[in-house]
Amino acid sequence: MLEFARSEGQRGLRNLSYAERGKLVGAVADVLVANRARYEDIAIANSGNTKVDAAIDIDGGIGTLKYYARLGGARMLLDEKAVRLAKAENYQAIHLMVPRRGVAVHINAFNFPSWGLWEKAAVSLIAGVPVLAKPASATALLAHAMVKDVIAAKVLPDGALNLLCGGAGELLAALTGDDVIAFTGSADTAARVRGHPNVVARSVPVNIEADSINAALLAPESSPGSAAFDAFLREVVREMTVKAGQKCTAIRRIFVPAGKADAVADALAEKLKGTKIGDPRQADTRMGPLVTRGQQAAAFDGIRRLASEAAIVCGGTDAPTLDGIDKNRSAFVAPTLLKLKDAGSAQAVHEVEVFGPAATIVPYRDEQDAAGLIARGGGSLVASVYGEDTDFLVRIVSEIAPSHGRILAVDPAIATAHTGHGIVMPQCNHGGPGRAGAGEELGGLYGLRFYHQRLAVQGSSDLIASLQAKAASVH
Amino acid sequence: MLEFARSEGQRGLRNLSYAERGKLVGAVADVLVANRARYEDIAIANSGNTKVDAAIDIDGGIGTLKYYARLGGARMLLDEKAVRLAKAENYQAIHLMVPRRGVAVHINAFNFPSWGLWEKAAVSLIAGVPVLAKPASATALLAHAMVKDVIAAKVLPDGALNLLCGGAGELLAALTGDDVIAFTGSADTAARVRGHPNVVARSVPVNIEADSINAALLAPESSPGSAAFDAFLREVVREMTVKAGQKCTAIRRIFVPAGKADAVADALAEKLKGTKIGDPRQADTRMGPLVTRGQQAAAFDGIRRLASEAAIVCGGTDAPTLDGIDKNRSAFVAPTLLKLKDAGSAQAVHEVEVFGPAATIVPYRDEQDAAGLIARGGGSLVASVYGEDTDFLVRIVSEIAPSHGRILAVDPAIATAHTGHGIVMPQCNHGGPGRAGAGEELGGLYGLRFYHQRLAVQGSSDLIASLQAKAASVH
Repeated sequence: MLEFARSEGQRGLRNLSYAERGKLVGAVADVLVANRARYEDIAIANSGNTKVDAAIDIDGGIGTLKYYARLGGARMLLDEKAVRLAKAENYQAIHLMVPRRGVAVHINAFNFPSWGLWEKAAVSLIAGVPVLAKPASATALLAHAMVKDVIAAKVLPDGALNLLCGGAGELLAALTGDDVIAFTGSADTAARVRGHPNVVARSVPVNIEADSINAALLAPESSPGSAAFDAFLREVVREMTVKAGQKCTAIRRIFVPAGKADAVADALAEKLKGTKIGDPRQADTRMGPLVTRGQQAAAFDGIRRLASEAAIVCGGTDAPTLDGIDKNRSAFVAPTLLKLKDAGSAQAVHEVEVFGPAATIVPYRDEQDAAGLIARGGGSLVASVYGEDTDFLVRIVSEIAPSHGRILAVDPAIATAHTGHGIVMPQCNHGGPGRAGAGEELGGLYGLRFYHQRLAVQGSSDLIASLQAKAASVH
Repeated sequence: MLEFARSEGQRGLRNLSYAERGKLVGAVADVLVANRARYEDIAIANSGNTKVDAAIDIDGGIGTLKYYARLGGARMLLDEKAVRLAKAENYQAIHLMVPRRGVAVHINAFNFPSWGLWEKAAVSLIAGVPVLAKPASATALLAHAMVKDVIAAKVLPDGALNLLCGGAGELLAALTGDDVIAFTGSADTAARVRGHPNVVARSVPVNIEADSINAALLAPESSPGSAAFDAFLREVVREMTVKAGQKCTAIRRIFVPAGKADAVADALAEKLKGTKIGDPRQADTRMGPLVTRGQQAAAFDGIRRLASEAAIVCGGTDAPTLDGIDKNRSAFVAPTLLKLKDAGSAQAVHEVEVFGPAATIVPYRDEQDAAGLIARGGGSLVASVYGEDTDFLVRIVSEIAPSHGRILAVDPAIATAHTGHGIVMPQCNHGGPGRAGAGEELGGLYGLRFYHQRLAVQGSSDLIASLQAKAASVH
């Protein structure tokens, strides 16, 4: 498969312009739109998604493809001006971005079999790098059906898109420095990928998106009933319950001024208890099960570790009793809220990620305390902050910025109009430092950089002008 | 030292603007200029440099500091415009670059104790990240003297610049995701750094510049006596002999049209044999010894491996006999030129780097053959191409671009006015894919990115405007 992608896939993509490859990506989106209803059924059956969960995954993938299909025509990759070098006036330099000559290996997580596949493939294909995608085995059916449809529709050159279901065998040992790896998943598997001897020896570029202990913060002055307070509660509940909390961007730590921790806990618990859990095929179900019983066991284990230092406000480590559901053949976890008494000495809350519908309230004393505690997460994909005072929001955003890849700041002006803490927008950077893997994906054209080699070319002004003209012709 | 840099160093740098930090870097350059004569003596004594070799190292370092001191005032880091997001008109996003909150660990190579130190420190300090530099032990005296002078001059905040001479002990095990590592040296040591369990587990960003098998290419139509032909010969000889070939960017593979291989070999051998080798303290010496006898033994071993498939044209695997030099207490290697008979089946020439004054002529059939052979180096820091035909130069540059970090194209217009194949300019990217380590250093402001976390901030248009104003105030 790797050889096929290297030869046929490279040949098919290399001589197209960015705009032409953008059209291919648009055609992929069209194939998926035409088959959308079938994908929803697969997502519900294979991932235990509700219709809303399935829509985030499927429409998120289609939307990202369409966004990048439009960007494909932008003439912005050659974004740097020639610079004068020393000595002679006619001696100059320019920086070029050229597509890599290898294959992009995309290793995707089980929670977004569609979005994870297409957000990577869109960027890679427009950059001209063939894709070898490996979905997580537990939820591979959706990726398999989608790729099969796209291949059957013959909208891409042979070898441009390849899917490997099941174990990856010796794949990483077969890569070279021309290839790249983009990985989404757990920090443990990420370390195995990044530390693979062949990947290290050949400097194969690796982009990692790993789960992180993301924070949401309520500003000190925000009071019950205010627009920011309500937006905060809504978003925490949404993040805990959408996809049963199985999002790498989900809120895991809920920072609340110490004096308001009990009031927030009560308000959240009331909303969480009212969330209808059950068979995702039923119309009134708001939250389905986790994806496997293994994930359910891991979530309960994580909640037990959090409970060693935090009180359980609602939910817990027993499978909920649900009408018509056999506890021994299902993987439900009730929305589980915990609350720390002493934030200063707590450790597990900053280290243990429950990949399910669970989060912990962390009371904070003041602004500085909050910033310090948030940084103890060791690097996160995203944080969100909620308040009325713009000065406070600007200060806290600046303070926590170095440990985040994205921050959502919600003030009353956008309290009901933002895109959400956990929703990754193709216009915005996706990735975070440290524990989150130190990756950078998406973010418009910036996301294409990973699939390019950037180089300086030094030469006479005539030669530089000829190179610029040639580069512009493929943009 | 790490704790001191994290606390004092961060405190001293964090609240300065880029322009203020640029002034500090300029002050460092001034200290070095004032003590330059002493550094030259150390370079000659400790590294076996000639005066020209020492100048490349010392003045290269000072020049890079001065270049970045000027750039420090540029208001370009916040280079991206706000983007509209979905839903409401007043909901926007912007991308910020914020300095990392950790320490920059710089692990430098023995061949550039000054330049390697300062090209990294300049960028890191302007970005606001304290430096912990570890010079290679064999040539640490120059780095030690320079840093001691800079510290004594009190031009930097306490903790901003730290030097660790000798073994690094458990340094890498003490790093976190806030820190970064920039490494220059061999691919083997690079792999140990990048694959270190703690570095992998905490996603510590690592930038690697490793030695590579860099190519120079003479165009098919270029004839003896032409300006490009002469420039090609001059540059190959210079690259082989400056610093006794101990440059990670030096030319190792010399690509010549098959019909001209013998003529080029004769011309190069004549010039190489005329290079005066000896004690670098003598004014007429053009090339000194390698840095240690260990390096000499490694170079001879590498030449033997190359000689298994290539003929030795001049030089070889015995230490040259030199007036007044004891062979058993010195580390000289004669300029050694090899020539392949059959380029198609050769392997060692693309894999074995002799870190000394040795290079191999690789005859090529045609343009396509040359491009394929060059790519077999597995990724290089730099290549240079020489010819009269601009169309050919543009084609070959485009073809070999994906496996390089920099390409110098020499046509008659700049035949005597370019900056050289092996000289790294701060304006231009330094680094290369694959074997070269997949790093990116320097290249103007782009080089500062490694020391920043890039993040998206989403919020109301008022909040985004406030953040922009705040970011601009530190630029």
